[in-house]
Amino acid sequence: MSGRAVAVVGGVTPRWGVRSATWSELAQEVGAALFRAVPGLRSEDVDSLFVGAAEPERFAFQSHVAPLVAEQMGLRPHRIVQRTELACASGQSAIRSAYAAIAAGLSDVAVAVGVEKMNLPSMAEANTAMACVMDRPWDGPAGATAPPFFAMVAQRHMLEYGTTEEQLAAVSEKNHRFANTNPSAQFYEKSFPRDKLLRLPLIAPPLRLGDCASMTDGAAAVVLAGEEHVRRFTDTPAWVRGSGQYSDFHNLANAGSLTDWVGLKQAVRQALGQAKISIGDVDVAEVHDCFTISEIIEYESLGLCPAGEGGRFAADGRGDVGGDLLVNPRGGLLGCGHPLGATGIGQAVEVYQQFAGRVPPARQSPDPEWALVHNLSGSANVHSVMVYQGGGAA
Amino acid sequence: MSGRAVAVVGGVTPRWGVRSATWSELAQEVGAALFRAVPGLRSEDVDSLFVGAAEPERFAFQSHVAPLVAEQMGLRPHRIVQRTELACASGQSAIRSAYAAIAAGLSDVAVAVGVEKMNLPSMAEANTAMACVMDRPWDGPAGATAPPFFAMVAQRHMLEYGTTEEQLAAVSEKNHRFANTNPSAQFYEKSFPRDKLLRLPLIAPPLRLGDCASMTDGAAAVVLAGEEHVRRFTDTPAWVRGSGQYSDFHNLANAGSLTDWVGLKQAVRQALGQAKISIGDVDVAEVHDCFTISEIIEYESLGLCPAGEGGRFAADGRGDVGGDLLVNPRGGLLGCGHPLGATGIGQAVEVYQQFAGRVPPARQSPDPEWALVHNLSGSANVHSVMVYQGGGAA
Repeated sequence: MSGRAVAVVGGVTPRWGVRSATWSELAQEVGAALFRAVPGLRSEDVDSLFVGAAEPERFAFQSHVAPLVAEQMGLRPHRIVQRTELACASGQSAIRSAYAAIAAGLSDVAVAVGVEKMNLPSMAEANTAMACVMDRPWDGPAGATAPPFFAMVAQRHMLEYGTTEEQLAAVSEKNHRFANTNPSAQFYEKSFPRDKLLRLPLIAPPLRLGDCASMTDGAAAVVLAGEEHVRRFTDTPAWVRGSGQYSDFHNLANAGSLTDWVGLKQAVRQALGQAKISIGDVDVAEVHDCFTISEIIEYESLGLCPAGEGGRFAADGRGDVGGDLLVNPRGGLLGCGHPLGATGIGQAVEVYQQFAGRVPPARQSPDPEWALVHNLSGSANVHSVMVYQGGGAA
Repeated sequence: MSGRAVAVVGGVTPRWGVRSATWSELAQEVGAALFRAVPGLRSEDVDSLFVGAAEPERFAFQSHVAPLVAEQMGLRPHRIVQRTELACASGQSAIRSAYAAIAAGLSDVAVAVGVEKMNLPSMAEANTAMACVMDRPWDGPAGATAPPFFAMVAQRHMLEYGTTEEQLAAVSEKNHRFANTNPSAQFYEKSFPRDKLLRLPLIAPPLRLGDCASMTDGAAAVVLAGEEHVRRFTDTPAWVRGSGQYSDFHNLANAGSLTDWVGLKQAVRQALGQAKISIGDVDVAEVHDCFTISEIIEYESLGLCPAGEGGRFAADGRGDVGGDLLVNPRGGLLGCGHPLGATGIGQAVEVYQQFAGRVPPARQSPDPEWALVHNLSGSANVHSVMVYQGGGAA
């Protein structure tokens, strides 16, 4: 990589959940919260705006959302303004775009915002919108939206490796427990002990209600800056050190193994390679637990454990407090909810706050140096990874 | 700007118009055409893919389009994959993203593709989708889609400066005449003499049918490369030398003057400043003539003539063959049609081909060195400008 160093210098995640706020109101709320959370930030500092949003056209009947967010936040971006869409990874995509623009010298200080409003008066309409994420004319009529697809993945993983419902529940229990330390999480102050999780209704067997991330309204925002501007905003920057993506099949008929996520292996190899670290160096990982089985396969494909041992990794608490590293301390998609475009931004906020030592003790990694953020999109056919380093110089 | 030099090294625009092809089929078609148009290109060369698309969610009930396009084109992007949306400027936004990624060293060879499928069985539905581009809850109920908005702009320009219907028709005649040299244009082999234009039906007074860009199905693609990779693909690169954007009001209630496009002045000042040239150096300009009045105001806001004299600039043929510079030699949005996400890519293809001397003589700029591409989006509240240099070294 060439280009100058870039860091996340602050961010904020307002309350996520089932909100009465409109799409625009969520954007306005996160804007006000961002200026409170980053006291050194003035609107005229922000030369560029990157908005991560998956489907405002269907959820809010609104397109051209980048200038709408600019107006709601009181910004007049004069370098770059755009929205990025990569379904469930739209937020990370916005951060990557901001990073590239700053590294290239096209922007000095940029805001990346994610907004999604998924709870509609007609939830049938909202669920139908989710079918747009798959190959709609081919996989849509087969009903291959996310829950049935990931249920197939879970069934296959159980068949191949003997993964159990109890191991799935271990992921859900951990992430919901972490969400209880996070007032912005959708399931803050909700209790999900393992025995309760195993009695919740089946959504798509073997996945139960507690195995699935929910439909969520929410927004999140971060500020990114080029190296010479970082210290105006923070003493605890989260430096972007690596970025990797891989795009494989779209049509399910072209999918390879359901349980071997080759794209994730490629993306993480690239991101870690750029950062010149190995997976064992990572202290905090924010990974895409849209379903419990996803986090289990991510342990494996990230290289935290061998193939087939992700269930045991979960049950043994190796991604929990006192384990190998902290996985999804924010509460994950399971605990925080999954407002598609906001999720990747919310994960970056957690990384920034972990480095700054500003999260509650029950989820604080002790003196973390390296963090990894992962998002998948669609039928796990696209994987997106970023690596951050805390403290230290540019 | 830091970062390495980046150039467009080839591209293609298949036939635009009212097509029976689906959204995916348009992507497949442009992919096949791109590999024919850039003979040195192999699929494994392409590390990143940027898709410009405005509203596939509403026009084609399809989101997550970046991996869909990758699959249709036979690509497996392993560095960056994303879709960018900026309404009518979505295509240029994809090019800017590719440029930033390559300049930052995050990509070496990237493809930027624009696809839009706007002609639906129900054109009422297609027209309604266009309302998503404006501030939908506020301006939508007032009926403020593009034609009535630009009609207000035209009426105001007529009131302030005495601009005439004949001057509007001069723009339309020029661009439709150029489109007759362009087999990919929607209105190829259609004749629009000025007297006919002035008798066409009124769409939104004073704008007649010939003053308005149409609803179009189409795609276009370009390849961009970092400086050390350019010569593998072409001897006539179009070097990216400048980039400017400005995002102003979104809600029409916050709009300033309808006829003084401050955002365009800001964007073009920045793009020309980066390129270290003045507007008088530009040989070819591809500007956003979504309506004839747009091109007239663009003459003024780009600095080609003083405020109020855009109509005379058109009537005097100063943007025509033998004039000050060639404006919209491809045929513009009026002549080519306006498949939203594809438009900005199609403009870049024209710039590449102008520099390569590969367009028909009737629209070839003699030995051009500098080209400018402009897109507006929404209610002309966002302006996007790029500046290219032909020939020469990186």
